[in-house]
Amino acid sequence: MSDARSPLAPATLPDLPEIAGVVRRVARARYKAWDRCDLTYVELAPGTAVAGVTTQSKCPSPEVEWCRRALVLGRARALVVNAGNSNAFTGNRGREAVEAIAARTAAHLGCDPSDVFVASTGVIGVPLPIDKAEAGLDAAYVAEPCSWVAAAETIMTTDTFAKVATTSAIVDGRRVELVGIVKGSGMIAPDMATMLGFVFTDAAVTPEFLQSALSAANAKTFSCITVDSDTSTSDTVLAFATGQAGNAPIESDDSDGADAFVAALADLCMQLAHLVVRDGEGAQKLIEVTVESAESDRSAHRIAMSIANSPLVKTAIAGEDANWGRVVMAVGKAGEPAERDRLAIRFGTTQVAEGGLAVTGYDETPVAEHLKGREIEIGVDLGLGEGRATVWTCDLTHGYISINADYRS
Amino acid sequence: MSDARSPLAPATLPDLPEIAGVVRRVARARYKAWDRCDLTYVELAPGTAVAGVTTQSKCPSPEVEWCRRALVLGRARALVVNAGNSNAFTGNRGREAVEAIAARTAAHLGCDPSDVFVASTGVIGVPLPIDKAEAGLDAAYVAEPCSWVAAAETIMTTDTFAKVATTSAIVDGRRVELVGIVKGSGMIAPDMATMLGFVFTDAAVTPEFLQSALSAANAKTFSCITVDSDTSTSDTVLAFATGQAGNAPIESDDSDGADAFVAALADLCMQLAHLVVRDGEGAQKLIEVTVESAESDRSAHRIAMSIANSPLVKTAIAGEDANWGRVVMAVGKAGEPAERDRLAIRFGTTQVAEGGLAVTGYDETPVAEHLKGREIEIGVDLGLGEGRATVWTCDLTHGYISINADYRS
Repeated sequence: MSDARSPLAPATLPDLPEIAGVVRRVARARYKAWDRCDLTYVELAPGTAVAGVTTQSKCPSPEVEWCRRALVLGRARALVVNAGNSNAFTGNRGREAVEAIAARTAAHLGCDPSDVFVASTGVIGVPLPIDKAEAGLDAAYVAEPCSWVAAAETIMTTDTFAKVATTSAIVDGRRVELVGIVKGSGMIAPDMATMLGFVFTDAAVTPEFLQSALSAANAKTFSCITVDSDTSTSDTVLAFATGQAGNAPIESDDSDGADAFVAALADLCMQLAHLVVRDGEGAQKLIEVTVESAESDRSAHRIAMSIANSPLVKTAIAGEDANWGRVVMAVGKAGEPAERDRLAIRFGTTQVAEGGLAVTGYDETPVAEHLKGREIEIGVDLGLGEGRATVWTCDLTHGYISINADYRS
Repeated sequence: MSDARSPLAPATLPDLPEIAGVVRRVARARYKAWDRCDLTYVELAPGTAVAGVTTQSKCPSPEVEWCRRALVLGRARALVVNAGNSNAFTGNRGREAVEAIAARTAAHLGCDPSDVFVASTGVIGVPLPIDKAEAGLDAAYVAEPCSWVAAAETIMTTDTFAKVATTSAIVDGRRVELVGIVKGSGMIAPDMATMLGFVFTDAAVTPEFLQSALSAANAKTFSCITVDSDTSTSDTVLAFATGQAGNAPIESDDSDGADAFVAALADLCMQLAHLVVRDGEGAQKLIEVTVESAESDRSAHRIAMSIANSPLVKTAIAGEDANWGRVVMAVGKAGEPAERDRLAIRFGTTQVAEGGLAVTGYDETPVAEHLKGREIEIGVDLGLGEGRATVWTCDLTHGYISINADYRS
């Protein structure tokens, strides 16, 4: 946890409802030399369905491998999250740590180890100390239940503020609640982030439908944010549905309230994804990049990500410099279909270039004004087809360098 | 030109031979509000062969389009380089500027406009002012010939030192000389850089063979460097062979001295490429990344570039932090075949991880010592096949942010 709260942090926290069947507890495992809670333990009612999406890294952590196997079964009784040590790239010792955590929690709850989901975040390459994990778990099992915000704070690493979100939906005549917590905040890249996100709902949903809804939400939210183009070995988003709301289970798109649930889950993931970008390491500005009229949505997404990942675009925004030439550069380097002489670019609502050159009588004043703000919009129209995508990133500042040039020390 | 010379700049300049058939002149076109030479004019003897490689950007500058067309003919009489304005993304006005420069120079020399090669570097989106270009050319035509170093200085933008290199080869019993000049120093990425490089030789070489030799050299040199993963709209490397050395023209691999010439050209391009990285914006350390035992050379190259482009790896090196976990992360995100539990990583000559975890009894002391130096080596062994690649980059520092957050102002 950093002392300096991101200037992009929300001013207030939302009111967060309880989710029937979800109990949170936190403890001090002391994975690092710090005096803060760093182990989160969430107990889930029997019958809880689970779905998840994980990193596309070819070198995933043992936690990710564990979750992937457990997700096949579709049920969950507990979630354990460790902060301060990612346990990634630690060979057999890392695997043993995950197995020990799952076994101990399974014994505590009287469930199968595959009902226990584990996620860890922090330094790579140091095996998670099993003795500290077990002592932390034992403390957590007997701790008082805590708030959502306390859990969100406990999963933080370099995050500067706790990230929580909520929404609700009417399903089968009943109100179902959704609450999510997430942590960032560097190594955030396409196809997931250095990010752990956990979504809880009391809706009754089959694991299969929950998975399809989460995958769809992920594609438009978590997979559309980037801080630094780096992809973590540990990225994980899990959704847990306790089924305590009493609705008839959502099984397919035809189920009563399926549309409303899918929309609510997507909304919640979008809130969480934006919170991650708002806490991007060193972020001073939130940048929304929209690419329109591309050959396809996929092509639009790639071009938008090329812009959002460009160090030269991100430093220009940091400098409040209306350097739209760098946007052209980033479009050009994406390798996707683009025709220079059809390209149009806007900052905020001001068109700066179209038809391959600066607009006639271009006045930089409104653009400069827009760039002084906290929320920056870059729009690109390729003039080719119907493809469209929006992604979010933050600027690249001295703060990012300071945080990352000295993270382990 | 920056006041602060890169700490990675060579201590001394090499002695540079004259190349028969090449005469350099520089002038003040005043493309920006500065008092320095910013127009370089190189006259080439009749019969000069030319080859080139240009940016892979989908939005290339009109200069790049001009050069691509002219390269088909394989002959050159002049090179004009403008610094301070890239003329990219300027529509018809940009095209007209290039045509005007070529036409005026062709009239001056009595040659065809397609014999005139033009390159420009600097801000994107501002049409190159034709009146300034023409006045600058007129001044250059009558200026005194200048040194290689003066020409190398005149093509600079944010470069902090002039970049020149030389080598020679014995071809057909005669010594042929090669001299190159190059400029960087941001927007340097795979498949070329924000980079203009010009190579001159007195060897007699057919345009076709010169092209094949330059393309081969480029693949192992300029395409293996990256500063910030950004790709310019204007990247251009041109090689000019005046044929004045008197050797029997090199036409194929079987020609006398072909091997020696190919090797010399590759050596020269490697020297120039390294100079570009040594002047990467904000660079404090030169980083060499070698990936071995990949499934293929291409796969090795992609993984090496993923490491070299990772902001988290580059900031760790800036912080002299032996954070090899970030190397694992960058291997994982490359999307290329990799098996976590076969991966071995070294910094300098010290193995830090193998078989999926830190080496037994890992002592960080020699690694910390290595990281204090100016030249850092990262080695990755994937344990999969025979593929191999080496690429070069620099660290990511506060200097990069300072330069790029306020470039246009």
